[in-house]
Amino acid sequence: MAKEITSREQDYSQWYNDLILKGGLADYSAVRGCMVIKPHGFALWEHMRDQLDKMFKETGHVNAYFPLFIPKSFLSKEAAHVEGFAKECAVVTHYRLKNDPNGNGVVVDPEAKLEEELIVRPTSETIIWNSYKDWIQSYRDLPLLINQWANVVRWEMRTRLFLRTAEFLWQEGHTAHATAAEAIAETKQMLDVYAQFAEEWMALPVIKGVKTANERFAGAEDTYCIEALMQDGKALQAGTSHFLGQNFAKAFDVKFSDKDNKLDYVWATSWGVSTRLVGALVMAHSDDDGLILPPRIAPLQVVIVPIYKGADQKTLIDARVQELLNGLKKRGIRVKYDDSDNNRPGWKFAEYEMKGVPVRIALGARDLENNVAEVARRDTREKKSVSLDGLDESIAQLLEDIQQSMYNKAKAYRDEHITEATSWDEFVQLLDTKGGFIAAHWDGTAETEENIKQQTKATIRCIPLYNPQEEGKCILSGKPSKERVLFARAY
Amino acid sequence: MAKEITSREQDYSQWYNDLILKGGLADYSAVRGCMVIKPHGFALWEHMRDQLDKMFKETGHVNAYFPLFIPKSFLSKEAAHVEGFAKECAVVTHYRLKNDPNGNGVVVDPEAKLEEELIVRPTSETIIWNSYKDWIQSYRDLPLLINQWANVVRWEMRTRLFLRTAEFLWQEGHTAHATAAEAIAETKQMLDVYAQFAEEWMALPVIKGVKTANERFAGAEDTYCIEALMQDGKALQAGTSHFLGQNFAKAFDVKFSDKDNKLDYVWATSWGVSTRLVGALVMAHSDDDGLILPPRIAPLQVVIVPIYKGADQKTLIDARVQELLNGLKKRGIRVKYDDSDNNRPGWKFAEYEMKGVPVRIALGARDLENNVAEVARRDTREKKSVSLDGLDESIAQLLEDIQQSMYNKAKAYRDEHITEATSWDEFVQLLDTKGGFIAAHWDGTAETEENIKQQTKATIRCIPLYNPQEEGKCILSGKPSKERVLFARAY
Repeated sequence: MAKEITSREQDYSQWYNDLILKGGLADYSAVRGCMVIKPHGFALWEHMRDQLDKMFKETGHVNAYFPLFIPKSFLSKEAAHVEGFAKECAVVTHYRLKNDPNGNGVVVDPEAKLEEELIVRPTSETIIWNSYKDWIQSYRDLPLLINQWANVVRWEMRTRLFLRTAEFLWQEGHTAHATAAEAIAETKQMLDVYAQFAEEWMALPVIKGVKTANERFAGAEDTYCIEALMQDGKALQAGTSHFLGQNFAKAFDVKFSDKDNKLDYVWATSWGVSTRLVGALVMAHSDDDGLILPPRIAPLQVVIVPIYKGADQKTLIDARVQELLNGLKKRGIRVKYDDSDNNRPGWKFAEYEMKGVPVRIALGARDLENNVAEVARRDTREKKSVSLDGLDESIAQLLEDIQQSMYNKAKAYRDEHITEATSWDEFVQLLDTKGGFIAAHWDGTAETEENIKQQTKATIRCIPLYNPQEEGKCILSGKPSKERVLFARAY
Repeated sequence: MAKEITSREQDYSQWYNDLILKGGLADYSAVRGCMVIKPHGFALWEHMRDQLDKMFKETGHVNAYFPLFIPKSFLSKEAAHVEGFAKECAVVTHYRLKNDPNGNGVVVDPEAKLEEELIVRPTSETIIWNSYKDWIQSYRDLPLLINQWANVVRWEMRTRLFLRTAEFLWQEGHTAHATAAEAIAETKQMLDVYAQFAEEWMALPVIKGVKTANERFAGAEDTYCIEALMQDGKALQAGTSHFLGQNFAKAFDVKFSDKDNKLDYVWATSWGVSTRLVGALVMAHSDDDGLILPPRIAPLQVVIVPIYKGADQKTLIDARVQELLNGLKKRGIRVKYDDSDNNRPGWKFAEYEMKGVPVRIALGARDLENNVAEVARRDTREKKSVSLDGLDESIAQLLEDIQQSMYNKAKAYRDEHITEATSWDEFVQLLDTKGGFIAAHWDGTAETEENIKQQTKATIRCIPLYNPQEEGKCILSGKPSKERVLFARAY
């Protein structure tokens, strides 16, 4: 093979990096903690973004764009928010450079110091609610259902391509409502949108739940989340939706008059998913030969590779492929005919496997005589000889099958990795051997949660929605508990 | 009317601001020079972006994403580039805040100072060519045809909503080629894409040309541009496409081996358009009653307003409108039925005129009896009674007519405002009275160009492509000249 990938067994973490780098999804950059999203990775993100955007619009949201910079003083307006977010940020202090008097390029002009420093947004609640103050006066202005696609910066100390980068791309929804009930309904609706997107488009099964107070978004009353499981048994938070209560309305003095002309603070939500989802996608499905992408969001769904000797054979194959291309494109299938003569078919096979193209069609001279093509699916690596008659239809069906089968496989793995623990020893042993989600009783205190984290590195991923109620005793403290929560080590 | 707009005659500049603010396109923000793009404005930008993106992809380009931050030292690597760009930038010097020891919110943590300052990208040539160095080794890696949609920051002293803001959204194409000829062809191709987009989608006639050395992009060998004319007779640069020669390849040491294994520096282009186009669109077409948007990029193309007394009439109208909505949507027309009872029809008429919706359909009880609707077009304000039979088809045709008619009107205005000047007095007088483009001879020196600018505030907008050659004398210096160039005062 052209490029070698470390196996999962050998080094899971290196396997992941190999996939991202050699699969052409991203590259390191000259700026600490910031990555370059390469064309193949960006195309993947575009397909995810476009589908999410469609779902946001179908649920009544519109897009807008707010400034990249946040005045420093805004961050301290909401007390909990500043504790959670104001610390590791990129801070703009100057607005001009000048030629170095010593002749070494440019230096910061000390005379161009900002009166108030600007923070590169780590999230936009504060700058957005500062605008909402001017936009909302009456109940007629509500609900305000706005989303923005943007880049944000959080100065992370340890970064991983896609999973945790200093700059990342995301969407952040920010909505304003007249009642708490309406805002909570919105929070849950967007959680459902995220879950539906993850499961139906990314083939990624997720658990919907609520975060504990410890793990809540800084400034939220409640944080809902979807949690997914990776192949190494670690959990990954794939999206969050926050009910913000009236916290930001109070911090920015956003009131509305209701139908009876009574003034009240506005109720808020925010919700977001990011390019982190690309990392989740890679980790959930891929194997030691490269990426495995679900057909619905794969930038390229089908690749056709000709196998021939001499121009005569090529001409015959070209003609038949053209027909096939037309048929596939008419069905909206993203297909490429790779007849470049730079590389041999074997090299191409490995390359498209590496890139995760769901279906490969190989067509040789003998195949043509027999009116068949060799169809290989990436997920199971199964190969079949398939009739050229109606091939476009069978490929369309195959893409659907792959999508479903990838989801089933990931779900079976996930379900096998939700284990109940009844004793502390069992809990620790499960974490160290099997991994995955551990359903265990917890006494509901932040102290115990923190203790468990210190001792095991496991956190409470969520309290699942519609969680069965069951009497029990906390796995660590032994105190009484009314339900199990899901623990895991996580990305 | 609900909201009053200053007339163009009274105060052109205030008219523009009124349109942007009252038309719901954008708002000022708490950050100096940065605006908030409101939902109506962002929807407009989305339609423009999506069409441009499609045209970029049709010409073989792919999207990627590079870091927001540029290490300070990168800017000085290309000598001309640093002169043009390194000066007015947002500079990140620290990466952490901490609680103010005096209890006043947060302060910058002096211990978290970056070793090398980071510049918020004003444009991305340097950070991108630093990556291209790793991506390009052989002629097989070329051409590299990448575009990115991003936010950039230039610390402008005087800002105007959309036209000149500290942060703006744009796309920047950055391509790498094996030969100068290929890079020049790419530069021209993208100029054509921009011109086609401006004319066919924005209904905005443009002149394609080349910039003089003075007005060239910092680091380019040649800057091509499209120039448009606004209703106040000022020109506006609507897009640029740069042939960068080997300047950035040399600055970042990007070489490739050709088929004979000979090493050479790579040839480059870059090209971009920004949210400034939204400002151009507004200024080119709108009138004293509000925005006038070309149908092809109008977020909403048709609005239907019912006129009724009582629920019985409403029910009849609703039923007929539902049919009409289905017909229009089937044709892909973006239509809204505004039957809200918060506001009277007259208020709605004014509101949708303000927002620039190309076609308004009013349907009353008597109209229904007569099997007609009142159709009003926004651009000419013409109203007609039109048969309900086949109305969806006549609306589709009307939208096409409006698109064409808006272009024709803008083009007639533009063509009337290209005037030849033969003497300096005439030149100055034309600038002060008629405005528009002035075609005049120029001696080809930067000194004269600068002199003219100092005396009149007019700049050379471009030397038009395929410019007729004609002997003459420079309008200021009287020295010999071989062609006329286009001068104007500009945004």
